[in-house]
Amino acid sequence: MAKRDTYTPESLLAVAVQVFNERGYDGTSMEHLSKAAGISKSSIYHHVKGKEELLRLAISRALDELFAVLREPGAEEGRAIDRLEYVTRRTVEVLMSELPYVTLLLRVRGNTDTERWAMERRREFDHEVAELLKRAAADGDLRADVEVRLATRLLFGMINSVVEWYRPERGGAATSDEVADAVIATAFAGLRTYR
Amino acid sequence: MAKRDTYTPESLLAVAVQVFNERGYDGTSMEHLSKAAGISKSSIYHHVKGKEELLRLAISRALDELFAVLREPGAEEGRAIDRLEYVTRRTVEVLMSELPYVTLLLRVRGNTDTERWAMERRREFDHEVAELLKRAAADGDLRADVEVRLATRLLFGMINSVVEWYRPERGGAATSDEVADAVIATAFAGLRTYR
Repeated sequence: MAKRDTYTPESLLAVAVQVFNERGYDGTSMEHLSKAAGISKSSIYHHVKGKEELLRLAISRALDELFAVLREPGAEEGRAIDRLEYVTRRTVEVLMSELPYVTLLLRVRGNTDTERWAMERRREFDHEVAELLKRAAADGDLRADVEVRLATRLLFGMINSVVEWYRPERGGAATSDEVADAVIATAFAGLRTYR
Repeated sequence: MAKRDTYTPESLLAVAVQVFNERGYDGTSMEHLSKAAGISKSSIYHHVKGKEELLRLAISRALDELFAVLREPGAEEGRAIDRLEYVTRRTVEVLMSELPYVTLLLRVRGNTDTERWAMERRREFDHEVAELLKRAAADGDLRADVEVRLATRLLFGMINSVVEWYRPERGGAATSDEVADAVIATAFAGLRTYR
């Protein structure tokens, strides 16, 4: 039973992103979106051209938030290692506050123009962070025995893994601050104590 | 054009795992497997009951290798923190040597009995490693300001991310030893230098 279409672009996007994350983008049809939203396909076409536009809007939201971090004063001023820690913390925060959107971004595999564009933008983001690691290494603030590209990948491995298990709706879960603190402590100072 | 069926269980499995990783397990039909292997569907049924048996065989291979690590002397003898570092190193090595099989294991989402069993076994593995972290924390060898469950998740986030970017066929890539060293250094001692 179709309900009255009271969707805004934002609320329709939220439904679409949930379906994309559950079924995979490739596995989602306009029929699936119509069912999940409870409105007809033609009502959806009233808002957007099709599912690829929904993907682009969702991924843009994640990317805009991530790139905005790189333009914050904490990311642009001071010693590279401190800027790197700042960017790490804020990236973790964006992952958690924009969880479904960033999850979609990280799962994109590149079969359509929109997906290839998303992967390219993601590489640009990673590249900017890698530049910070390079500068921190040149300052002598980063350990010399881990190659910078490898360190970048492991840092993002840890950061991005948050989307795999962070579920804000579950009671007793760590808060956003606790998770960000834990990532910073683990990645930069390590888990082991030395006495 | 069907070729003569000269497959062994191992070589057929290798083809199937590649297709599963490319198309996703849900998106793979017996038709896809038949095309990729270049033999008829009935030839495949001569080897296995169906695609779920291929999934089970592939995932068993990854799980057997991972659980075997936990029974090695380095994982069972000595201080918990040293056993934890040993298990981390060996897990990274298994990820790299059994890359397609572990990739499949890590992507499984749980729609069939075999997938649910795989996820359950994976949780058991994570649980055994979490126990090592708990003991290391009790020994005072693990930093006290990161909760053990969170530390376990971040450690696995870093380890498991290796399947996302490690490609042994690409020239110039880090060797297995370099990657394992980098994971150990980053996770346990941290990226930052302190002077």
